[in-house]
Amino acid sequence: MYIKKRKLARGVAIVGAEMSRFGAFDDRITRDLFVEAFGEMRKAVDKGFDPRDIEAVYFGNAANEQFEFQGHLAPILADWVGLVPRAITRIEAACASSGVAVRQGVLSVASGVNDVVLVAGVEKMTGLSAELTTSVISLGCDQVYEGKAGFTFPGLYAAMATAHMHRHGTSARQLMSVALKNHRNGALNAKAQFNATIADLMARRIARCRERGEPAPGWKAEWDFLEDAEANPVVAWPLRLFDCSPVSDGAACLLLASEDIARQFTDNPVYIIGTGQASDHALHERPDMTAIMAARRAASEAYDMAGVRPQDIKIAEVHDCFTIAEIVATEDLGFFAPGAGGRAAEEGLTARDGPKPINTSGGLKAKGHPVGASGAAQMVEIWRQMRGEAGPRQVAGRDIDLALTHNVGATGGTCVVHIFERRQ
Amino acid sequence: MYIKKRKLARGVAIVGAEMSRFGAFDDRITRDLFVEAFGEMRKAVDKGFDPRDIEAVYFGNAANEQFEFQGHLAPILADWVGLVPRAITRIEAACASSGVAVRQGVLSVASGVNDVVLVAGVEKMTGLSAELTTSVISLGCDQVYEGKAGFTFPGLYAAMATAHMHRHGTSARQLMSVALKNHRNGALNAKAQFNATIADLMARRIARCRERGEPAPGWKAEWDFLEDAEANPVVAWPLRLFDCSPVSDGAACLLLASEDIARQFTDNPVYIIGTGQASDHALHERPDMTAIMAARRAASEAYDMAGVRPQDIKIAEVHDCFTIAEIVATEDLGFFAPGAGGRAAEEGLTARDGPKPINTSGGLKAKGHPVGASGAAQMVEIWRQMRGEAGPRQVAGRDIDLALTHNVGATGGTCVVHIFERRQ
Repeated sequence: MYIKKRKLARGVAIVGAEMSRFGAFDDRITRDLFVEAFGEMRKAVDKGFDPRDIEAVYFGNAANEQFEFQGHLAPILADWVGLVPRAITRIEAACASSGVAVRQGVLSVASGVNDVVLVAGVEKMTGLSAELTTSVISLGCDQVYEGKAGFTFPGLYAAMATAHMHRHGTSARQLMSVALKNHRNGALNAKAQFNATIADLMARRIARCRERGEPAPGWKAEWDFLEDAEANPVVAWPLRLFDCSPVSDGAACLLLASEDIARQFTDNPVYIIGTGQASDHALHERPDMTAIMAARRAASEAYDMAGVRPQDIKIAEVHDCFTIAEIVATEDLGFFAPGAGGRAAEEGLTARDGPKPINTSGGLKAKGHPVGASGAAQMVEIWRQMRGEAGPRQVAGRDIDLALTHNVGATGGTCVVHIFERRQ
Repeated sequence: MYIKKRKLARGVAIVGAEMSRFGAFDDRITRDLFVEAFGEMRKAVDKGFDPRDIEAVYFGNAANEQFEFQGHLAPILADWVGLVPRAITRIEAACASSGVAVRQGVLSVASGVNDVVLVAGVEKMTGLSAELTTSVISLGCDQVYEGKAGFTFPGLYAAMATAHMHRHGTSARQLMSVALKNHRNGALNAKAQFNATIADLMARRIARCRERGEPAPGWKAEWDFLEDAEANPVVAWPLRLFDCSPVSDGAACLLLASEDIARQFTDNPVYIIGTGQASDHALHERPDMTAIMAARRAASEAYDMAGVRPQDIKIAEVHDCFTIAEIVATEDLGFFAPGAGGRAAEEGLTARDGPKPINTSGGLKAKGHPVGASGAAQMVEIWRQMRGEAGPRQVAGRDIDLALTHNVGATGGTCVVHIFERRQ
């Protein structure tokens, strides 16, 4: 496909990044989550900074009107961290909201109008019943053609999974190997909603049975647990509970600066050298459900702008709202050939110590998926890994000079891809 | 106040602009409104263009999730006019959604990444009951501190009106003179929801009474009608029905191009030479309710970028969601001194044939206020007036070389100001 060569009029870098703890918090609303992330991000700026230097704020949020009945949240958030009267702009792109917000922040710096920009992603999802939460999330699919047919997101991604299985022979076990890997990574991330491997979750479940004096299940290994229809029920075949990311609360913040002033904030900035965004038809209209066209196009744009190839990318955070989504992503991004993503996951190629580590943060699956925050939170992980600050889950034995994030809205109606560079 | 001098890395122009009919349409959803506006805009590009030249779309929409239960509307809209797989980004800033969308479109062109950008504003508001519609709109105020106290938007703007009356002696008659003027302009705008003066509306009401065989009211002049508590009831004192803009459906589209290629589309582009955006505290927190700080700051930024002064502006479209809002706007923009806006309106200074014509389109009051579309629709009027194409409502006898738009979200939590230039 033809992609016009695009160039930013000036360079942009991340000079600070952090997130709130992700989880389900009864006592916290969106404002609290944002304030936590902003405070943590301030501490992550090596040389410190005066918040008054922030000239504009872009924030991603998918559905606060539904989750908290608060619209026009942008100026309220600005006010809670003292950023009134700065320009603050809310971007909604379903689960890609903060990935797209980062892109707008980058463009606003490149435009010459802003030098220092805060980007935030925020979502508080756990205040409603499970039924209402499912309804709110499903607003992101085409209500005229998909919603009225009864689709919710597990069903839509299940359709993609069965298409992938049919075309490429992808197996349910390959899907679940994505969840196993991402929980292994999340177990090493103290901010993750599931700071636990699937084996840990299984052990806790056995311990709870014992505490209650119930007969303990006979699971010996993770796969016993994952194949148990009660422990890991089918949500929408072939997707089972552990194929699905959770409902989460959380926020993430990034500080962007123009390239020429980035080193005022840190000697170790992470440069954003590629950005791409694209749209696609709703799922029911697509000729092919085994790939996401918007992801392929956004990736091509970002690779072209950055002047790098898929094989140059050392680590990536990709949008694993469901396990099938990670497999499709690794193919759409050119890391593996179409159809080879399932096998790659099963064989450990995307493990933290494999040749192409994917979702070292735990991904949406284990870290959590507060939808409007996920795109920005992906970059928090990239920031840490590229600077060698990822602690127990640091990818070792290689120079992480190039990294990528991939953030998807709905079933791929929106996709945004960013490429990052660390310079010596 | 200190405003950093900002400059766009490259110039941007409007090369085409049009809107759908505004009104209340039982048989049309958002997609239909957008398709109409897009088709009309295509016809407004003098030299024509291939829609495939559009590289990105920014669209403003305040609350489609509530009004139509459709989230992630951006890619769906793109698809309905054949613009998949272009990047399409939805901006939400309450009633300033499409004003802010224009700003992001401008920045994206200035950034060097896009050369040709479509900006759209869309809202379908009339599908719900009046009670639900009021609830949806009121989500834009601070739910923790204002919503729970029972405020809706007429009440919030009524508080601003009483503050303005108390401080400056502004009268209810001055407020209503804004409505009289805007209906006079709307009567000359075939796309307006109220394509009628208040005298016309009064005459229709009298005719309806006669048809029904009821005794005809004894109104002789507009003011008899406006002072009748049944014909023009108090909504939130001092604001009466005709102080309030209507609930509307509509869409507007603008085509932006970088300055260097603008003349490929038209020999008569309208250049965007200034853009400013700012935020403010929620109304309950402000030390002063007689002005909107975000408007003053956004205006200062835009004037500084454009290098012009308030007295240089020949015409302006300002955000008259309520009559008091237009009076405050004309003061915040520096057209009249603080407190002098009411008298200026009453004395006809803002009339179409006055020294500072304001809202020649009919404004939100008469043209209609489909909230996410209003900011873009303001620029449709500027496009027509600056090019001398406003037909019966064309401002005559002067060279409209500089114009301004002012678009407010909620009670001024967001404000965005743009300044336009026509070059010989």
